[in-house]
Amino acid sequence: MITTDNRDETKDRILDAALKRFIHFGAGKTTMNEIAEDLRCSKASLYYYFPDKQGLHLAVLEKISEHLFQTMEERLVEMKKATDTLLDFIAIKYEFGCKFFRLEIFKLIQEKKMITPQQFRAFRDREHKLFTRIFEFGNDQGEFHLKRPATEIASLYQDVLEGVRYVASDGLPVIEIPNEDFFAKIVAKQRAIAQIFINGLKYKD
Amino acid sequence: MITTDNRDETKDRILDAALKRFIHFGAGKTTMNEIAEDLRCSKASLYYYFPDKQGLHLAVLEKISEHLFQTMEERLVEMKKATDTLLDFIAIKYEFGCKFFRLEIFKLIQEKKMITPQQFRAFRDREHKLFTRIFEFGNDQGEFHLKRPATEIASLYQDVLEGVRYVASDGLPVIEIPNEDFFAKIVAKQRAIAQIFINGLKYKD
Repeated sequence: MITTDNRDETKDRILDAALKRFIHFGAGKTTMNEIAEDLRCSKASLYYYFPDKQGLHLAVLEKISEHLFQTMEERLVEMKKATDTLLDFIAIKYEFGCKFFRLEIFKLIQEKKMITPQQFRAFRDREHKLFTRIFEFGNDQGEFHLKRPATEIASLYQDVLEGVRYVASDGLPVIEIPNEDFFAKIVAKQRAIAQIFINGLKYKD
Repeated sequence: MITTDNRDETKDRILDAALKRFIHFGAGKTTMNEIAEDLRCSKASLYYYFPDKQGLHLAVLEKISEHLFQTMEERLVEMKKATDTLLDFIAIKYEFGCKFFRLEIFKLIQEKKMITPQQFRAFRDREHKLFTRIFEFGNDQGEFHLKRPATEIASLYQDVLEGVRYVASDGLPVIEIPNEDFFAKIVAKQRAIAQIFINGLKYKD
């Protein structure tokens, strides 16, 4: 008899196997067959859990973004200085982006196919709550001197960091899929901008 | 005999008439016929200067962006505080954007038809020089304490302000043509971000 625990465990094993394949060979090039072979299970049992590759791909993305949020939330618990946590978050997201480049997340977001604007918004809202807590913490500790509510600062911060992703050096929006080099360039810019933004919050009139 | 002076004068009169029409009725809805009527000249003489509406439209845009730059450059000459000039520039560009909304600049930029990436880059480069001078001035006067070269700060500042234009509240790039309300919302965000960015430059470790 398959219990809920068993089912969750099998699902997790499938997600891990798919993730490994996706990272090594790219999500587009991986077949359901290959994943079944890696797991030494029949295609039928794989399809029982994930009727198609798109569903599996999405489940993998959900799992790793859950992991990303957990990492960020843990960092929040042990926060001592808001500045350090903000810069940590950029590093964590960069690492996440590099590791999972082959999961074709950027492609999916831009195609607006599998990842809907609603899902994207949910991601942003969750991140917004984390940033709000960091800015509040920094203000309470006297590290920042906020002239606007922390929730508004968090939105502006998100807009600023997200915004540079779409601005190429000629200022036209980049809607192409970024390659590794371009991604690294964007993150370097985010870091420089975050530093100025953070100093702006430290500034006391 | 048509002298160069005469020709320039006639061209200018045509551009002024076209601009008036464009602002009132929109560039798309204006015909070459209507412009000729406003000028009380024959269509033939209008077409002598501008063989098609697209060329006329582009010439109008060049004229008004030249005017925008001249306004900004004059402001630079009388600069007393870098902060004031930076905030002035946002106001000047907003006024420019509102006044010339019907010139369908945003549409042209996004369609990448009439305004090429090269032209866009030239615009950005010229603006970059102005910003660099403001940041240098602020640093020289002790108003700012730059931790990076003024030219790099200027690029980051441009990226930040341009970037928010493409970030909707859900973080997906907005490639639709902004309406008046959306435009006002973006500029309010730019103002808030500019203030934090500027304070970041004032901050002394």
